[in-house]
Amino acid sequence: MKIAILPGDGIGPEIMNQAVKVMNALGEKFETETVPVGGAAYAAHGHPLPESTLKVAKEADAILFGAVGDFKYDNLERSLRPEQAILGLRKHLSLFANFRPAILYPELAGASSLKPEIVSGLDIMIVRELTGDIYFGQPRGVRECPDGAFKGEREGFDTMRYAEPEIRRIAHVAFQAAQKRSKRLTSVDKANVLETFQFWRDIVTDVHKEYPDVELDHMYVDNAAMQLVRAPKKFDVVVTGNMFGDILSDAAAMLTGSIGMLPSASLNAKNQGLYEPSHGSAPDIAGKDMANPLAQILSLAMMLRYSLNKAEQADRVEAAVKAVLKQGLRTPDIYEAGTTKVGTTQMGDAVLKALA
Amino acid sequence: MKIAILPGDGIGPEIMNQAVKVMNALGEKFETETVPVGGAAYAAHGHPLPESTLKVAKEADAILFGAVGDFKYDNLERSLRPEQAILGLRKHLSLFANFRPAILYPELAGASSLKPEIVSGLDIMIVRELTGDIYFGQPRGVRECPDGAFKGEREGFDTMRYAEPEIRRIAHVAFQAAQKRSKRLTSVDKANVLETFQFWRDIVTDVHKEYPDVELDHMYVDNAAMQLVRAPKKFDVVVTGNMFGDILSDAAAMLTGSIGMLPSASLNAKNQGLYEPSHGSAPDIAGKDMANPLAQILSLAMMLRYSLNKAEQADRVEAAVKAVLKQGLRTPDIYEAGTTKVGTTQMGDAVLKALA
Ligand SMILES: CC(C)[C@H](C(=O)O)[C@@H](O)C(=O)O
Ligand SMILES: CC(C)[C@H](C(=O)O)[C@@H](O)C(=O)O
Repeated sequence: MKIAILPGDGIGPEIMNQAVKVMNALGEKFETETVPVGGAAYAAHGHPLPESTLKVAKEADAILFGAVGDFKYDNLERSLRPEQAILGLRKHLSLFANFRPAILYPELAGASSLKPEIVSGLDIMIVRELTGDIYFGQPRGVRECPDGAFKGEREGFDTMRYAEPEIRRIAHVAFQAAQKRSKRLTSVDKANVLETFQFWRDIVTDVHKEYPDVELDHMYVDNAAMQLVRAPKKFDVVVTGNMFGDILSDAAAMLTGSIGMLPSASLNAKNQGLYEPSHGSAPDIAGKDMANPLAQILSLAMMLRYSLNKAEQADRVEAAVKAVLKQGLRTPDIYEAGTTKVGTTQMGDAVLKALA
Repeated sequence: MKIAILPGDGIGPEIMNQAVKVMNALGEKFETETVPVGGAAYAAHGHPLPESTLKVAKEADAILFGAVGDFKYDNLERSLRPEQAILGLRKHLSLFANFRPAILYPELAGASSLKPEIVSGLDIMIVRELTGDIYFGQPRGVRECPDGAFKGEREGFDTMRYAEPEIRRIAHVAFQAAQKRSKRLTSVDKANVLETFQFWRDIVTDVHKEYPDVELDHMYVDNAAMQLVRAPKKFDVVVTGNMFGDILSDAAAMLTGSIGMLPSASLNAKNQGLYEPSHGSAPDIAGKDMANPLAQILSLAMMLRYSLNKAEQADRVEAAVKAVLKQGLRTPDIYEAGTTKVGTTQMGDAVLKALA
């Protein structure tokens, strides 16, 4: 099994080190190749997603991705900025199905900014479409406004679009995810305003016929943002488009107060996948042995489960993470009085030990 | 001064009754005209925003709007559904500047789903552009996909667009709002992905030159959604586009836990405005004397302040609302043990009394 390792920028490399340590301790044979991505790739090759990196990613069964972005690259032109690497990987590998769990570990209930009774036991799975929508729709750009009240003025524009097969395939993925959980699916749209999302609602409703055991409801995105704050535990599996999913999955992650704990998976139709923490590259704490490696380690677990078909190994890794939390070990981002503060490496070592 | 009264559907009429009572007690001369809107207008005239209603609205100095929508109208075709009336009024009257305060009244701190230390004293003003963006951009519809991997398939599509003068005018409004408050403005965009919002960022940055006393920062919408959950008090004035504003203003309102308290104002360049509660029409509790009329009454206060230039009267109304909260009066939506539960009419009467 071939695994591409893309550590990236900021805290990416140091949390990746911990995940690789854990991976190597599993007693499986993985063929790995480590290549730069994001700012690191720009520095080395002049592009955030060089051909050489893309090739390794494409040929791998799975990609373990750290994080990209650093202050140093903020002033590059957009097409060279680190985050373009993520967009490029998603598009080139057709990673259309993004799984973003928002789980509140009982030991970390205090970390949330919400009241414990509102969030304790939270366990939501957001399924975000990742290769369509206004993220990639053409045409887009800055032009002379062609019509309307501002004709002749400069305007910025983008195109939101979803083709029927794009909606069908993400809907199937989401219904199947719901079947494996509580059999409830919420599809989030803005059908009252957008043609794209009225169409989305129609297609999701049609796909539902093939999953009569799943209860489907539709919710407008503004209401979904409210309900996430008011009563997040009412959600189980949520499916939505790329743009709304970007916003809602981050809001849901933050409800837990411990985004340093949350992994994500982005899959294509062949179950080839990219696995990355939900958090960013945190350049302000890079190199200080302060970052929480657990989201990266849990991304490894998702990789074992989804792309490598090693559910037992995934269970082992997840159990080891739960064990270190139970032992009271905490990186600074999740530290509370009465627990033991540890650094990135110590946390990785503790997971390794718990695995044995 | 001419005021159009549009009670609408659901709880709209009953909360409007309370606001009108308060308005009539101010000792000012207002010429009012009451006309149907939303489902009520569809029932009476076959359209949610009939010509007759639009005419009254256009000729008024200000519009006091209740709420629209009811289960009965859910299956109408989209162009006839109640919420189209709101979109139509915004567009026909060029109400481009939407002010959505998210204020947590100290007496209601317990109502929030967030921990008290995270939200107590919350006071955010969201300035949402309201007549542009993907809400109105043409072209839009369902068509045969013209290019790309899904060429020939059906697709839904919409156009996001912002012309330079549209961004400039909302930016001016927002900077001026910031000048009257803490002189801090956060502009929310998705410049890392969308051309429209890179353009937005460039123009807002340019307008900033005229407001050197205001501190401006830019934030991506996904991060803004996270920071609203994590540390909402860091925000003061927020400016954003129509679509992101829809989502963020509802999320911000819900942080307070008392959306039944929050008014809104939508203004055009002549300060003609539409004033409505931030909450919806709640058809499930309509006619039960249970609805909270305070958001509608506070919308009246905003109307006095913004469109009618009666700041003193606005202060009086707001002080009366604070007084009833201090008296411990609560409609069911904000009721807590130890307070006095009252109905819609009693709450309106109490405000009236506090005004005197
Ligand atoms: C970095 C950015 C382009 C990206 C996105 O908007 O998708 C990120 O926010 C994410 O959610 O993975
Ligand atoms: C009813 C709907 C069209 C409207 C919107 O999306 O703008 C509402 O959600 C609002 O925020 O006023």
